[in-house]
Amino acid sequence: MAAPRTIDDVENKRKHNAAERRRQLCDAAISLLADEGPRGLSHLKVDRQAGVPDGTTSFYYRTRAALLQGIADQLVRYDAEVFTEVFKDAPNSSGRVIAGMLADQLLAVRSEPQLSRTRARLELTMSARRDPGVASGFRQISESYRALVERLVLALHHDNGLDVDHALCDEQTSVLMAYLSGQTFALSNDSPEVLTRQDIERQIHAVLVGVAVEHAARQTPSSDSSGVRAK
Amino acid sequence: MAAPRTIDDVENKRKHNAAERRRQLCDAAISLLADEGPRGLSHLKVDRQAGVPDGTTSFYYRTRAALLQGIADQLVRYDAEVFTEVFKDAPNSSGRVIAGMLADQLLAVRSEPQLSRTRARLELTMSARRDPGVASGFRQISESYRALVERLVLALHHDNGLDVDHALCDEQTSVLMAYLSGQTFALSNDSPEVLTRQDIERQIHAVLVGVAVEHAARQTPSSDSSGVRAK
Repeated sequence: MAAPRTIDDVENKRKHNAAERRRQLCDAAISLLADEGPRGLSHLKVDRQAGVPDGTTSFYYRTRAALLQGIADQLVRYDAEVFTEVFKDAPNSSGRVIAGMLADQLLAVRSEPQLSRTRARLELTMSARRDPGVASGFRQISESYRALVERLVLALHHDNGLDVDHALCDEQTSVLMAYLSGQTFALSNDSPEVLTRQDIERQIHAVLVGVAVEHAARQTPSSDSSGVRAK
Repeated sequence: MAAPRTIDDVENKRKHNAAERRRQLCDAAISLLADEGPRGLSHLKVDRQAGVPDGTTSFYYRTRAALLQGIADQLVRYDAEVFTEVFKDAPNSSGRVIAGMLADQLLAVRSEPQLSRTRARLELTMSARRDPGVASGFRQISESYRALVERLVLALHHDNGLDVDHALCDEQTSVLMAYLSGQTFALSNDSPEVLTRQDIERQIHAVLVGVAVEHAARQTPSSDSSGVRAK
């Protein structure tokens, strides 16, 4: 690469390097969080994990709160990258395709780098309660997941040529979020249950169909009010 | 209470007191875990939290692994107590009644003592990975939850006068477990979403109905293989 020639070039290079360094430190912090939990995280340990001189992390992140916020921001950026990648070939994907992508994302939690990122995210979510500085970054993550799931739900309605019923979509999104979050927690904690992509896709559809059936039953007061029709 | 009169009485009283003391220490440890996570837990902090002389926790639990195992056992016992209470008036409850009870249990996570116990359980589940001594206690908890959920599913089949289809029941149990686990994680981490008992009951039924619909579709090869019927 040619040497920078103007003040602006120098300034841009400096900013680029700082961003790279922050990313490197946050990656090290994510590994630490995943392996040891929030209490295993210190500025010095991050320096050692990243293989940088002692004091580097303190230079970029003065306080523990700033470091945690930096990690949260980094996790949000990684999620955004994944979502962009997932949707790049499929700006108007069918619900079926999106369900398959969601299943792939869920299964990716079992291997690196998603495993550490997911575990770090869960650890930070649990500690956000006692650390309000982190909470806002995590509201962002949770909203970006919800937006993705909502997009799937709307796509499925569209596939079926249905008018969009917002109350129904909201509840489908909520129940599917709970299902995906439970599976994510299980997968990132080495659940022994064997789940294939096909299982997850089928279960995603099952959740959506079930909510629609219950919803339709409520719209028809004359129908079986127990809402339980196992077949 | 009269003074103990025989060696056996003395021995029984001693055992009773030791059990009480262990319970007291574990309760203190559960609060610490819920508030500060696994790294906030030390023998001395448990002593201080429980208001007992320094060294008491070390006397009852020599190592950190023993203390964690003690907490896991205590959480298993609390769950067993809750399940016994839930079923005491309803040994042959209908699925509808059990679904209501599950909804109540889920909502109870928002307040004490269930909130701290749930958070401690999630913290320990996440650290069980790096602490094999704890893992077996948590397999027990997870199996006891699964047994309860399975019982609900079987009761619903019974209510509907259906033959029990074991493959269907297994999948309904798995998907419902994931849904309940996701909601538990959200509720114990102060999710802003407003959920009523009625919402949860309806969502439990939705999950079960949806899995049954998808299952039936797979049994009928001529049907719409996409399995997506949003209404």
